Amino acid sequence: MTADPTLDALRRLLDGRWAWIRDEVRQTLQDPLFTPVYGIDVEQHRERVLEQAKALSSTPGPRLLFPKELGGDGEIGAAVTAFETQAMGDLSLLVKTGVQWGLFGGAILHLGTQRHHERYLGDVMSLDLPGCFAMTETGHGSDVQSIRTTATYDPATDEFVVNTPDDDAVKDYIGNAARDGRMAVVFAQLITGSAEQEIQRHGVHALVVPIRNEDGSPATGVSIEDCGHKMGLNGVDNGRLAFNQVRVPRDALLDRYGSVDEHGTYTSAIENETRRFFTMLGTLVQGRVSISGAALSASKVAVNIAIRYGLVRRQFHAPDSEEEVPVLNFLQHQRRLLPALATTYAMHFAQEELVAQLHEVFSNPDADDLARRKLETLAAAIKATNTWHATATIQTCREACGGAGYLSVNRLPQLKADTDVFTTFEGDNTVLMQLVAKTLLTNYRDEFGELDSLGMVRFVADQVVETVVERTSARAIVQRLIDAVPGRDEEVGVQDRGWHLSLLTWREKHVLEGVTRRMRKGMSNGEDPFDVFNSVQDHVLTAARAHVDREVLELFVQAIDRCEDPAAATLLNEVCDLHVLSLLERERGWFLEHGRLTPARSKAVTAAVNDLCVRLRPHARLLVDAFGIPDAVLAAPIALGDEERRQEEKRNPSGSVQPQPVS
Amino acid sequence: MTADPTLDALRRLLDGRWAWIRDEVRQTLQDPLFTPVYGIDVEQHRERVLEQAKALSSTPGPRLLFPKELGGDGEIGAAVTAFETQAMGDLSLLVKTGVQWGLFGGAILHLGTQRHHERYLGDVMSLDLPGCFAMTETGHGSDVQSIRTTATYDPATDEFVVNTPDDDAVKDYIGNAARDGRMAVVFAQLITGSAEQEIQRHGVHALVVPIRNEDGSPATGVSIEDCGHKMGLNGVDNGRLAFNQVRVPRDALLDRYGSVDEHGTYTSAIENETRRFFTMLGTLVQGRVSISGAALSASKVAVNIAIRYGLVRRQFHAPDSEEEVPVLNFLQHQRRLLPALATTYAMHFAQEELVAQLHEVFSNPDADDLARRKLETLAAAIKATNTWHATATIQTCREACGGAGYLSVNRLPQLKADTDVFTTFEGDNTVLMQLVAKTLLTNYRDEFGELDSLGMVRFVADQVVETVVERTSARAIVQRLIDAVPGRDEEVGVQDRGWHLSLLTWREKHVLEGVTRRMRKGMSNGEDPFDVFNSVQDHVLTAARAHVDREVLELFVQAIDRCEDPAAATLLNEVCDLHVLSLLERERGWFLEHGRLTPARSKAVTAAVNDLCVRLRPHARLLVDAFGIPDAVLAAPIALGDEERRQEEKRNPSGSVQPQPVS
Repeated sequence: MTADPTLDALRRLLDGRWAWIRDEVRQTLQDPLFTPVYGIDVEQHRERVLEQAKALSSTPGPRLLFPKELGGDGEIGAAVTAFETQAMGDLSLLVKTGVQWGLFGGAILHLGTQRHHERYLGDVMSLDLPGCFAMTETGHGSDVQSIRTTATYDPATDEFVVNTPDDDAVKDYIGNAARDGRMAVVFAQLITGSAEQEIQRHGVHALVVPIRNEDGSPATGVSIEDCGHKMGLNGVDNGRLAFNQVRVPRDALLDRYGSVDEHGTYTSAIENETRRFFTMLGTLVQGRVSISGAALSASKVAVNIAIRYGLVRRQFHAPDSEEEVPVLNFLQHQRRLLPALATTYAMHFAQEELVAQLHEVFSNPDADDLARRKLETLAAAIKATNTWHATATIQTCREACGGAGYLSVNRLPQLKADTDVFTTFEGDNTVLMQLVAKTLLTNYRDEFGELDSLGMVRFVADQVVETVVERTSARAIVQRLIDAVPGRDEEVGVQDRGWHLSLLTWREKHVLEGVTRRMRKGMSNGEDPFDVFNSVQDHVLTAARAHVDREVLELFVQAIDRCEDPAAATLLNEVCDLHVLSLLERERGWFLEHGRLTPARSKAVTAAVNDLCVRLRPHARLLVDAFGIPDAVLAAPIALGDEERRQEEKRNPSGSVQPQPVS
Repeated sequence: MTADPTLDALRRLLDGRWAWIRDEVRQTLQDPLFTPVYGIDVEQHRERVLEQAKALSSTPGPRLLFPKELGGDGEIGAAVTAFETQAMGDLSLLVKTGVQWGLFGGAILHLGTQRHHERYLGDVMSLDLPGCFAMTETGHGSDVQSIRTTATYDPATDEFVVNTPDDDAVKDYIGNAARDGRMAVVFAQLITGSAEQEIQRHGVHALVVPIRNEDGSPATGVSIEDCGHKMGLNGVDNGRLAFNQVRVPRDALLDRYGSVDEHGTYTSAIENETRRFFTMLGTLVQGRVSISGAALSASKVAVNIAIRYGLVRRQFHAPDSEEEVPVLNFLQHQRRLLPALATTYAMHFAQEELVAQLHEVFSNPDADDLARRKLETLAAAIKATNTWHATATIQTCREACGGAGYLSVNRLPQLKADTDVFTTFEGDNTVLMQLVAKTLLTNYRDEFGELDSLGMVRFVADQVVETVVERTSARAIVQRLIDAVPGRDEEVGVQDRGWHLSLLTWREKHVLEGVTRRMRKGMSNGEDPFDVFNSVQDHVLTAARAHVDREVLELFVQAIDRCEDPAAATLLNEVCDLHVLSLLERERGWFLEHGRLTPARSKAVTAAVNDLCVRLRPHARLLVDAFGIPDAVLAAPIALGDEERRQEEKRNPSGSVQPQPVS
């Protein structure tokens, strides 16, 4: 509790359902062991991160990921919230543990069956069995269904033979591989039969494969290469794995979705190979949710540092004054930082909903396919949006801090470097947004799981666009606001929330219909499907963005509706105004093109953004404080109390500059 | 010479007037000593860079900066071109030598007089006297005129006493200070008189101050602190310098623009203190020109790597084909990279003009004030634009290369980290753009050099906007194109160059007039000048950007006009189309708001950008090859021949994936 009731109310709202684990992790982060570091060499950094990870293994976070019957604490929403909070600290540690518990452990949990769980998960949780998640191949980053590693069943020995056929099939960028991993979950094309019999291919499956011996040397047939120095995350030992006819017993296959008996007969409850593949992938959605949360926390840390520094750093003086002006008083500085802060709030509430959906689906064994697909679509949308927002925001914050922002001691360089890859890992953002668009464009009934975007063209050409906007009770507030908007845009103020909501809803629908029309037209003209798809690709991405923009705004509105403190709610409404009006300003070209903004109203939006910057400036510190980032991990001297005191002294006349007479 | 005449013609046009020095530097860069490095520790990197710098000191580049009579080769245009070319390699080396020869040497040359030149410049060129340029202070990054370090004349000993009054006055981020520098050019408030007599302040002046003894220890009264690890440029030893009553002889004052005699009497040919300050700063404009060129080269390297990789990296296959598609065939990938490439061409020709103006002004002792101010304004505009372009382009290229772009071996991480500070050093871009706007807003006659942007408000309120568009012979082509545009926008194609030029010209004028009107209105309403200025700050920056956009396009048009090869000129015209139409697409909100784009025409601009991406795709490799970046510094495996061969093999059926029967 603080002395400020508005701050407390904001913090309560932001911390939400799993506030207790946020507080536990905040406590953990106070330990000097977790202070972010920089400028140490790769080997030192890897060593430190391993030590940190071992320390974390005895905290509650990791065990929350795994069910109670397996020795865990079984509350996935809390687990992902712990991960999000941990992301305020060193991101190498975060990714290292994300690989170990989330990806490696998660794959064993979700793709394996009881014998795998019993054999491995205890050691996974305790870090006695460090492991890798070996999915990505050099030549197949985004197109996982086309990976070339093979796992061929050999009935003679009752084993699978795992093999890397060529350089492009090498497992690449694999975390935990270069130094610490003992075992890997390897994704491979499952093959039964042999050259003499009929060869049968069953699509991508996962197997547990030992990659190192007890003494740390590579297992027989396994080649390991170090990816070496990276832009960031150098505490994570990424490497390349190649398998030369590596033999593993038949039960190494994680066989929840497909198994092979001792005669080499394959069975699966899901007959369609593509559908099976996407069902398997779908169980791993927590990885995307987690990275999305990590990106959000990184944005929070960055805006916190930049805003605190902007409040104490002074430059130039007003014409009639000797006193220099805090840079955050300049409109241009406000325009850099305050919309970024407002959108960080928006993304917080979007992430909260994503985590809630993840928790519902994974806590409920009867969750239906629709709920799973909704979750996967939301995860793709929010992961892409949150990671792009982090990249842009941290860059803005770095620039807003000038030279000080370039020094590693002030954390922004590391934040930038570490998060930069978030836009491409756990699903390349552009590919994820295509996935979002596809869900919007199809009713998904028959084609569930067909990722191949090119195939989508023919499909969409036959379908009616179906915009699934749910009418839940939480959405009632949104609908009420929309319904209250009069017929003509001009009759409402630019800060009318209903107008914002109806604009974004209309845009989503309009763009989707436009894409469908173009695809149909292309197909009915007999054009090549690739050309049809390719020519609408930017339009497809606009559709996905329009969808996310509407969704994020609605979730913000619902969050404000939940806020019980009137002062905090009023403030949040202005933050929401700044978020959505900055968005409308950025997208005003589209709205003007489509007749939904008049030139005069478009200019009014820009004026309102400026006005809101000025109005929110006095609350900037409160708004970043509400994130509850412990000083120990904020770390940057430019953001901390020392600097504030120093600047305060400077403002004090006794510290002012006088010519120094020579004695 | 290559086998492709279009490539040769492009290379000739791009290499331009100082092609010979570009080729010399390309030759130097082949030496393994200059191969870019990554992942080594700070001390090793600094050591390596010093060794490289010493090797460079015997090449022609550095001597080109200094006049013949001082042992140099005296061709500043060639010197800056050499620097630009050297920037294709390691940027730590570039910045280290830029500090030594450009800033430290340049300050002695331009602010000092003959005795300083004779005493120091030989050792500066040979690197026997490593030095610093100590201008920036912790509390005064952009507002140099407000620095607090003092240099007070003491007639009793005929010395200046250099002093740092408080922590905010510490010289910060100073290159060459933490490890190698022996001397610094220190900027300080010059003071004569004493407490007993009248204290006289003469504004900012520069003095040479020894900072280290022969044995490397700090000189008496000098404290040196290491800035430590940075986001990038870790081969440069940035540090902090503080002076505690450090005494230097009277002739340590670089006294070209102001001197103090033995009685402590100050004289200067320029009476107005502010004007004197900006005259002194103006002589240092080559630093901005150089950084602008370095940013340009970094953009070229990045797009080169990303485009080459986009041509060989394949993902997904078309519905009717087993063959995967090179990612650069996807419209979305083209849209990321090709407009960035087109604008890199545009910025090349803008930089060329900037270097030509620099050369003219500095080679001509009679260059008038107007030419100098034109140069300074252009340097501010192009430096800001080039460095922002580099930041955005390198980020785009990194993302377009996926995980491979995150590995240091592929150069993009280092390029990103090293160039990131370019937007804030040698003048913060936002401040530089305000300077550009100010030049546009005033006729500058009486107020020359008054940087204080707040003072501008009152001034502008009394002035008539004067858009100085020169009518030189080079501009004749631009005017002809504009004159050929019919009265109504709708009557010309969206690729009509005259239409582009007239749109950008109209926008510049309209925005400028709007800013002036708002300022006048604010002042006549009696508002506080700070508030007036602050409320139009974003409008002021739009004015500056509108000016640069028009200027850059005109220079591109003039460059194409100089191209003698018809095939190359045709290609360049399409590159120019893509550059300007991408710009119009990005800025379409403004043009729609102001009635200069109809919705239909705005959509046609977007369609034309897509169309141009497809048309330029087959020429992408040629266009990046024309930059002439030696493979030795391109360095990235994803961009080099090996990878190309490997990918070629992959396309060969013999390398295709077959199930691996178990023997």
